Amino acid sequence: MIKTDILIIGAGPTGLFAVFEAGLLQLKCHLIDALPQPGGQCAEIYPKKPIYDIPGFPEVLAGELVDNLMEQIKPFQPGFTLGERAETIEKLEDGSFLVTTNKGTKHQAPIVAIAGGLGSFEPRKPLMKNLSDYEDNGVAYMIKEPEIYRGKKVLIAGGGDSALDWSIFLTEVADEVTLVHRRNEFRGALDSVEKVQELKNQGKIHLITPAEVVTLHGEGKLEKVTVRKTDSDEEVDVVVDNFIPLFGLSPKLGPIADWGLEIEKNAIKVNNALDYQTNIPGIYAIGDVNTYPGKLKLILCGFHEATLMCQSAYQRIHPDKKYVMKYTTVGGVIGFDGSKKEAPKAVVKAID
Amino acid sequence: MIKTDILIIGAGPTGLFAVFEAGLLQLKCHLIDALPQPGGQCAEIYPKKPIYDIPGFPEVLAGELVDNLMEQIKPFQPGFTLGERAETIEKLEDGSFLVTTNKGTKHQAPIVAIAGGLGSFEPRKPLMKNLSDYEDNGVAYMIKEPEIYRGKKVLIAGGGDSALDWSIFLTEVADEVTLVHRRNEFRGALDSVEKVQELKNQGKIHLITPAEVVTLHGEGKLEKVTVRKTDSDEEVDVVVDNFIPLFGLSPKLGPIADWGLEIEKNAIKVNNALDYQTNIPGIYAIGDVNTYPGKLKLILCGFHEATLMCQSAYQRIHPDKKYVMKYTTVGGVIGFDGSKKEAPKAVVKAID
Ligand SMILES: Cc1cc2nc3c(=O)[nH]c(=O)nc-3n(C[C@H](O)[C@H](O)[C@H](O)COP(=O)(O)OP(=O)(O)OC[C@H]3O[C@@H](n4cnc5c(N)ncnc54)[C@H](O)[C@@H]3O)c2cc1C
Ligand SMILES: Cc1cc2nc3c(=O)[nH]c(=O)nc-3n(C[C@H](O)[C@H](O)[C@H](O)COP(=O)(O)OP(=O)(O)OC[C@H]3O[C@@H](n4cnc5c(N)ncnc54)[C@H](O)[C@@H]3O)c2cc1C
Repeated sequence: MIKTDILIIGAGPTGLFAVFEAGLLQLKCHLIDALPQPGGQCAEIYPKKPIYDIPGFPEVLAGELVDNLMEQIKPFQPGFTLGERAETIEKLEDGSFLVTTNKGTKHQAPIVAIAGGLGSFEPRKPLMKNLSDYEDNGVAYMIKEPEIYRGKKVLIAGGGDSALDWSIFLTEVADEVTLVHRRNEFRGALDSVEKVQELKNQGKIHLITPAEVVTLHGEGKLEKVTVRKTDSDEEVDVVVDNFIPLFGLSPKLGPIADWGLEIEKNAIKVNNALDYQTNIPGIYAIGDVNTYPGKLKLILCGFHEATLMCQSAYQRIHPDKKYVMKYTTVGGVIGFDGSKKEAPKAVVKAID
Repeated sequence: MIKTDILIIGAGPTGLFAVFEAGLLQLKCHLIDALPQPGGQCAEIYPKKPIYDIPGFPEVLAGELVDNLMEQIKPFQPGFTLGERAETIEKLEDGSFLVTTNKGTKHQAPIVAIAGGLGSFEPRKPLMKNLSDYEDNGVAYMIKEPEIYRGKKVLIAGGGDSALDWSIFLTEVADEVTLVHRRNEFRGALDSVEKVQELKNQGKIHLITPAEVVTLHGEGKLEKVTVRKTDSDEEVDVVVDNFIPLFGLSPKLGPIADWGLEIEKNAIKVNNALDYQTNIPGIYAIGDVNTYPGKLKLILCGFHEATLMCQSAYQRIHPDKKYVMKYTTVGGVIGFDGSKKEAPKAVVKAID
């Protein structure tokens, strides 16, 4: 059982920044995310694209923003349950909440902050009859730990940035990389497409296009796939250890929609006049996942919502304490890891 | 008469970022500030101190943040009326507002956004009887254009960062720099104190401590001051062109308090459940200057408030248009100066 002060569902920019604001209030956080890495949409959909409306950054790559946030929250040592979807919530007798993931990991906290964005990112799976038999036995839809592919024969399917970038990356790790796409054309950053072309020319990526994987074979675990060339209908068998269809991830509000929260336009209604709390006291919703009159699904709005939410959470956790806000410039940042950042103090010094 | 879409009173971080959000909506802004430079508290009080809670910046100097915001809003060419205090407001027949400064500069706009922070920064003046006779004739309380001191004999009074830093700066510009302080000890950044000591040793700053300026002399304009050494009561006359007492600026809500706006705890009440509008339609209050349940006087909150305010302002200005928000990553930033920032487009390209 993982216990924390604020359990944050969703490790997008909003959830990440909440860790910082909670930390300033000496509250600890743990984050759950269905994705294998933190950063939400920024990390999953457009890490290499620039954002222009983060205040103070005339331009910042989405992936850089996530890196910066991870650096900023480091002193507050958040815990992470990654690659798992928060599935159920239960209110315990002491008033705290128990949240269990699809993999059975249990988390308990007095405060739950849903920062679920557009929903839990779920992979689009190809339509193949025995696909699920091989899940976790050779078939995966996201790459969580690249190291498990070391020395393996890997087949990636897909024609977008993920398929391109992981094919490139895995040439350094895997024994064999095959890339299958139903068209000859790939869609992605120019340098990624060019790099794949180069690796293909060097024989480091084995390319089969236009084609699709049609059958999976293997006893207990994946051993071979059948690939059909869609222009000639010719079929070839490829010996593989892993089949990774990267057809994109799409967000689904999913199980959270059944938690008894007021939902409107596929988002959770909150009290924006006060603290972004939902209709269930102790459960907040911040960032893209919430809705209120005038809501804008922007990163900078999630930052503000996270900040006000933490103040309210502090009051719920410490009803008797009166919190007096201190500017970070004045009070510094005192990490749970013992680190301390603070402004250089002014001196009082005679000149003679 | 200066005409604009949104007239922003206060060029602190909140007012500056409002220019960016307005620009994305193709609305032009003009800012009025009592200070000679943009940046509000960040620029005036703690430009060289680090802030730790700006999302995405593990650490940023307050002055750097202001520079970044100025760079970010550049494409939207804001106008500035600096060194003047917004004094009166009048509603015109066409529903727009006319705002006049203490120097008589007139501004007209359909929307007024008060981003006045803790108030208009006003200098603390020394108590001397004929001081006001020399204002703008040798006496100044802030340094607006350092160039006007070129070749001049300048006397600065004060013992804090401003007095130290301007004394240092003016040694490069003025003919003579004298620094007078009522104690021997100065209070400021260590390197500033040390630099003044060094310049004093080199004879580039003439130091008189512990002392105070007691009398001003001159016909029509300042020609000489009398300085009394407070330890010996000895008096010396110093020939000067300029006397600049830098005793700190303190913010005063001032004239805005009489504009018919609902005031609570020295701040302007706004509708935080919707758009940060005040009790007078068309007048908004954003950033430190406003108040609502749960309000935090933080920079990141001002950014969010500015953003929602601009959406509402857009609807007031264009009641018939339906605005469809576009992410900056997707739509880019198209400046009024013809500049365009945009994300590199994905390519669709065959690999063969
Ligand atoms: C192409 C593109 C360009 C964009 N450009 C901009 C821009 O220029 N400016 C801007 O401000 N915004 C932009 N956005 C929007 C911005 O990315 C979002 O506003 C932001 O990511 C929202 O952050 P969040 O933390 O609220 O949610 P997300 O980033 O959506 O993160 C939510 C996370 O929660 C997880 N999650 C949800 N439910 C569960 C569950 N039950 N269990 C486990 N995990 C769960 C998801 O997997 C996800 O990782 C853009 C978005 C896209 C797609
Ligand atoms: C030492 C110190 C440390 C701080 N540390 C932090 C921190 O770590 N994190 C954080 O988030 N915040 C911090 N703050 C607070 C932060 O600086 C303010 O929240 C922020 O500056 C507010 O921005 P603003 O634009 O709303 O107002 P301000 O920065 O106050 O700017 C308002 C401007 O409006 C002008 N103005 C007002 N009335 C008029 C008028 N009638 N006519 C003309 N001009 C007018 C003023 O001259 C001023 O320049 C700190 C503040 C101080 C003093």
